[in-house]
Amino acid sequence: MTKKLMKGSEAIAEAAVQAGCKLFFGYPITPQNEIPEYMSMRLPQVGGAFVQAESEVAASNMIYGAAGAGERVMTSSSSPGVSLMAEGISYLAGSELPVVIVNIMRAGPGLGGILPSQADYLQATKGLAHGDFRVLVLAPWSIQEAADLVQDAFDLADYYRNPVMILGDGLIGQMMEPVEFREVREPIKELEPKTWATTGCNGSRPPNIINSLFLDPEKLEQHNIHLQTKFDQIVRDEVRFANYHTDEDYDVLIVAYGTVARVCSTAIDELREAGKAVAMVRPITLFPYPYEAVREAALNASSVLVAELSSGQMIEDVELALARSRPIHFLNRMGGMLVSPDEVVAKVTAMLDGRSEEVHHG
Amino acid sequence: MTKKLMKGSEAIAEAAVQAGCKLFFGYPITPQNEIPEYMSMRLPQVGGAFVQAESEVAASNMIYGAAGAGERVMTSSSSPGVSLMAEGISYLAGSELPVVIVNIMRAGPGLGGILPSQADYLQATKGLAHGDFRVLVLAPWSIQEAADLVQDAFDLADYYRNPVMILGDGLIGQMMEPVEFREVREPIKELEPKTWATTGCNGSRPPNIINSLFLDPEKLEQHNIHLQTKFDQIVRDEVRFANYHTDEDYDVLIVAYGTVARVCSTAIDELREAGKAVAMVRPITLFPYPYEAVREAALNASSVLVAELSSGQMIEDVELALARSRPIHFLNRMGGMLVSPDEVVAKVTAMLDGRSEEVHHG
Amino acid sequence: MTKKLMKGSEAIAEAAVQAGCKLFFGYPITPQNEIPEYMSMRLPQVGGAFVQAESEVAASNMIYGAAGAGERVMTSSSSPGVSLMAEGISYLAGSELPVVIVNIMRAGPGLGGILPSQADYLQATKGLAHGDFRVLVLAPWSIQEAADLVQDAFDLADYYRNPVMILGDGLIGQMMEPVEFREVREPIKELEPKTWATTGCNGSRPPNIINSLFLDPEKLEQHNIHLQTKFDQIVRDEVRFANYHTDEDYDVLIVAYGTVARVCSTAIDELREAGKAVAMVRPITLFPYPYEAVREAALNASSVLVAELSSGQMIEDVELALARSRPIHFLNRMGGMLVSPDEVVAKVTAMLDGRSEEVHHG
Amino acid sequence: MTKKLMKGSEAIAEAAVQAGCKLFFGYPITPQNEIPEYMSMRLPQVGGAFVQAESEVAASNMIYGAAGAGERVMTSSSSPGVSLMAEGISYLAGSELPVVIVNIMRAGPGLGGILPSQADYLQATKGLAHGDFRVLVLAPWSIQEAADLVQDAFDLADYYRNPVMILGDGLIGQMMEPVEFREVREPIKELEPKTWATTGCNGSRPPNIINSLFLDPEKLEQHNIHLQTKFDQIVRDEVRFANYHTDEDYDVLIVAYGTVARVCSTAIDELREAGKAVAMVRPITLFPYPYEAVREAALNASSVLVAELSSGQMIEDVELALARSRPIHFLNRMGGMLVSPDEVVAKVTAMLDGRSEEVHHG
Repeated sequence: MTKKLMKGSEAIAEAAVQAGCKLFFGYPITPQNEIPEYMSMRLPQVGGAFVQAESEVAASNMIYGAAGAGERVMTSSSSPGVSLMAEGISYLAGSELPVVIVNIMRAGPGLGGILPSQADYLQATKGLAHGDFRVLVLAPWSIQEAADLVQDAFDLADYYRNPVMILGDGLIGQMMEPVEFREVREPIKELEPKTWATTGCNGSRPPNIINSLFLDPEKLEQHNIHLQTKFDQIVRDEVRFANYHTDEDYDVLIVAYGTVARVCSTAIDELREAGKAVAMVRPITLFPYPYEAVREAALNASSVLVAELSSGQMIEDVELALARSRPIHFLNRMGGMLVSPDEVVAKVTAMLDGRSEEVHHG
Repeated sequence: MTKKLMKGSEAIAEAAVQAGCKLFFGYPITPQNEIPEYMSMRLPQVGGAFVQAESEVAASNMIYGAAGAGERVMTSSSSPGVSLMAEGISYLAGSELPVVIVNIMRAGPGLGGILPSQADYLQATKGLAHGDFRVLVLAPWSIQEAADLVQDAFDLADYYRNPVMILGDGLIGQMMEPVEFREVREPIKELEPKTWATTGCNGSRPPNIINSLFLDPEKLEQHNIHLQTKFDQIVRDEVRFANYHTDEDYDVLIVAYGTVARVCSTAIDELREAGKAVAMVRPITLFPYPYEAVREAALNASSVLVAELSSGQMIEDVELALARSRPIHFLNRMGGMLVSPDEVVAKVTAMLDGRSEEVHHG
Repeated sequence: MTKKLMKGSEAIAEAAVQAGCKLFFGYPITPQNEIPEYMSMRLPQVGGAFVQAESEVAASNMIYGAAGAGERVMTSSSSPGVSLMAEGISYLAGSELPVVIVNIMRAGPGLGGILPSQADYLQATKGLAHGDFRVLVLAPWSIQEAADLVQDAFDLADYYRNPVMILGDGLIGQMMEPVEFREVREPIKELEPKTWATTGCNGSRPPNIINSLFLDPEKLEQHNIHLQTKFDQIVRDEVRFANYHTDEDYDVLIVAYGTVARVCSTAIDELREAGKAVAMVRPITLFPYPYEAVREAALNASSVLVAELSSGQMIEDVELALARSRPIHFLNRMGGMLVSPDEVVAKVTAMLDGRSEEVHHG
Repeated sequence: MTKKLMKGSEAIAEAAVQAGCKLFFGYPITPQNEIPEYMSMRLPQVGGAFVQAESEVAASNMIYGAAGAGERVMTSSSSPGVSLMAEGISYLAGSELPVVIVNIMRAGPGLGGILPSQADYLQATKGLAHGDFRVLVLAPWSIQEAADLVQDAFDLADYYRNPVMILGDGLIGQMMEPVEFREVREPIKELEPKTWATTGCNGSRPPNIINSLFLDPEKLEQHNIHLQTKFDQIVRDEVRFANYHTDEDYDVLIVAYGTVARVCSTAIDELREAGKAVAMVRPITLFPYPYEAVREAALNASSVLVAELSSGQMIEDVELALARSRPIHFLNRMGGMLVSPDEVVAKVTAMLDGRSEEVHHG
């Protein structure tokens, strides 16, 4: 198995194909057009199909149909396009359909710009659409991790019969890194045949129905209780995070995800070289959020720094985790501007020197 | 000024007309069709216009156009329809356009059912769509309050140049109560002429542009900083809540909003009559959330009960407010089922008797 | 009453307003955007409403709704946009709804170009959409006539409860000429109140239903017989045409409509000055087509010249009229190119000199 | 090669697959849903793809994309759905893309009914959409012929790079007959590789562009001249018709197509058995229309009967062919009602007895 230099978007697409994804429906939007482009070339080679839909609304219903038929299917978009899929995603979750949705975030709100952002965190993790449901949200910080998470995403989607989102920023989509794909790969969950899928019964079994409509409120409540049991299981079993220098002493704990975490790791190396005690917890799953890991790591620090490419969205989950047990500081850029290692170094130094003010949210 | 017996949906619609709303664009969905129906009859009488759009996506762009032209405009829908407006709402917020959006929540996810729910709380308050923005969310608990809040909503929308959402449940939309409209009514905020609107300049002034696209990331960051300043001001100035028996002693503090709060008030009357010390804080604005009011009131209680028609959404904001300072208990129904006063009485009694278990979220 | 210098598109729009049109629904397309632009400014002044729809498909359904409610309503578009309205127009005709549709033809097929054309003649007169129906088609050759025909169109639409199309080319839309509007204007047909309209009955009369669905084939056949009776009456009563020098001797008869007829009239003046015996019949209604007028005039000539901005579309109706009784010659340009007076002069001269070949179609 | 009993819709679908059609895009509408249903089952078996589009508008653009990529692609619909494809079909013709479009006509106008009709003749042959273009129209009268014509349609579409329409009525779609498919089948035209298709050049050749936009009117005129040359060639080379008893004496010539021709053949058998001299010309291509064949056959008769399931649409082409050389009589039903053999017998008998009146159109 050799490494191949690939753009993030292409690695995501290839990983999906390697995971057995045969179908892709989407509508183009910068900065993730390399994903549909790659899929349009690649899927016919494996007997699959690529369809550019009339709109993101149409695409979100097409993946519903394909997932209902038991196929592995993916869509990808960027922020405004994901908003257009909101209703469809609620239908997918309500009907318990496994799909993988890639959001390569661009800066908003509205049309905004085409440069990287993390401002769809709250949308992805809390309020993606109407009704009580959640999607698993996986946030890679490298091309290799993006490829690995895409493959895991298909297994998780199938196992939980629920949409899984890959939440990246424009850097994850655009930068190039060496990546390798495991040729023979075992599913990460024990997967059962999709006996629920509408594959055509022809009298050989009772017909399957894929549906999110329950006009009887008692049945709809039962359905919701069933869904919540599933989300509770996800919260219990699927939390992922990575630690960076948390096995050493540290005064400041950084919490960051995605490419911002990568910037922070560079800054931490520099800071530690200069004798500053800094560590990081990097959430990999944004839902379920690693509340306990963040809390435990924070309790070993004097203060916590949250760094984000947004006005402050993940910070709400850090506050939930910490419950005011440690002061929280915040470093961010918006509108497509990036946080630099120097800014992180400066901010941490200011915190250590008592020149930074904590923030409050709730 | 006399009171008139009206259905909630009709009162909401009439209140909008009284507030100077001349335009309505929407697409029908149960259980709020009385709003567009009333508007289609009423708006022509005041020289306005009602348009049933091709879809909620279309409606969300039509209100963009009308608001950009400086008109007072409203749309209404129910849960799945609001999800379809997600992209449009982000555009409205990004372009700083004042509109009033009514969401009469039905149970989900997906198509779900047509009975009342509060399961769009997280969507409304946290993740309505992509990008860094918020909408003011007002949650009435009676028909009179619904009418009053609709009128306030137009002033708040104009003042902050931001979408304002009325978040009701099916009961607010369907039940009938006496309601009165203030004939002469002063705006609740000092409003300035909409000199930014695209009303046709004909050379008399520089052209106005309504836009959310900023390809230069520095400009987009500045735009986001400007928006955040506005949201900070909203958090500082617009928090609304109501207290119920908090000026008396209480062991248990209930936090609930909308019709659930009304159910709880009945239960509290019954409990207090039986000598049980219970009080309630009812958030009226869901964004901005009354964190301080909830926290202060909770500190006077031994434990807190959150009651919701969802799997537990507002409870996240209560946890942020309390920061583990008091145990939180939870009572809910889902799928269109209602919480009854008896259930509230039973739950509070169990809490007082030590037979209820607290819940943890973060 | 004074004449005002106006662009054709604006005169068409103003004429509609003068005719009592209160509503306009459309989607922009070159070269007729001055019509919606003018309407968006003008309709609010008369208590009407202008809506830019999501698409031409949406617009064609909005005019259905407005006409069904008994209002005078117009839409306008150019060739590709009219094709998108095809289904809607069949619904309008099937449901017997009066609307005025303006098609300012651009060159096709497909996206084509934005310059004038007459290549939608067959679409307008024969095969606008599925099913047995026709629309009245009025083809002006000047701005004044365009304004007059628009006003007549509303009366004809109401009288026959059928769509009426104004078929112009880009020159009619773009050129400027003095135009006057009759201030007090009697309808050209005796119009009855629209007792069939869905105006809200509130129990005061049986509900009206606007519908084109008849699942019982006997009823649908009766409905079609009723429609055909109407189209027969239109053919009998509404034929319009203009003659040019047909009361003098002529060897060559030109048949042309719209701005091409105007070019031909210039050529005829020149030819007659040079002693060449030429005359013209100009169809004003394209459906119903002035077959008899064309035939009678042709029988006084030795040969007939058809001039069109298409590959030859109206020529089919001239052939039907003549039934091989006279040789037909053809002069045309396509793709937005115009026929010039010189080309007409040259062609007629060639015909008179025996240097032009006749054409055959059927 | 054995015959198989098949429904018309299924035979049409299977014939397409046998012809190498790999892709189908459409939207369901009665009475032709068996075509998409069959395709959704069959295409994956041959490595193809079936997509139910968001609408007929979407489908008409998807076949544009697929044809542009050089694939054999088909769509099918019924009358209102074909109207929705009008714009798309003009784009296909303008961009010279080979597709096969099946229209199983239902009665109109508007929603109409779901029973058989021939009322889309004028739409199909004259005015399908804006601009100067034609589609080849093939009208089968049996299931076997439907299957054969579908296979020919793909060859004709590819050869002329133009849309080809199969125009059937509900009977063709719904009835069952034995049908056989030629296993090895030579194309009916000499086909060249699609070197113009956008298959991805990767620098190996100059990029191909599929386009119908020509902003320069001179270029658009040249493009139109090129298209007309092609349509002229089609008129010259592709006329198809069938004669029935025209090699014997006849007083009455019937002109009919599709299943009406089949009804007429039964009537003719009966009439000839009773000693009545009747024959028929059955157009198989409606564009190009067999004007010469109809004219020549008519000149051997005393009078001509046109029978149609419409108000009289093909009769216009018969009038063009005959140019008043013979009296034309007309028999029709509308709204989904069928013409019976008895009605044909009665009409022909009345014609022979001088009890039928001729009709006039132009």
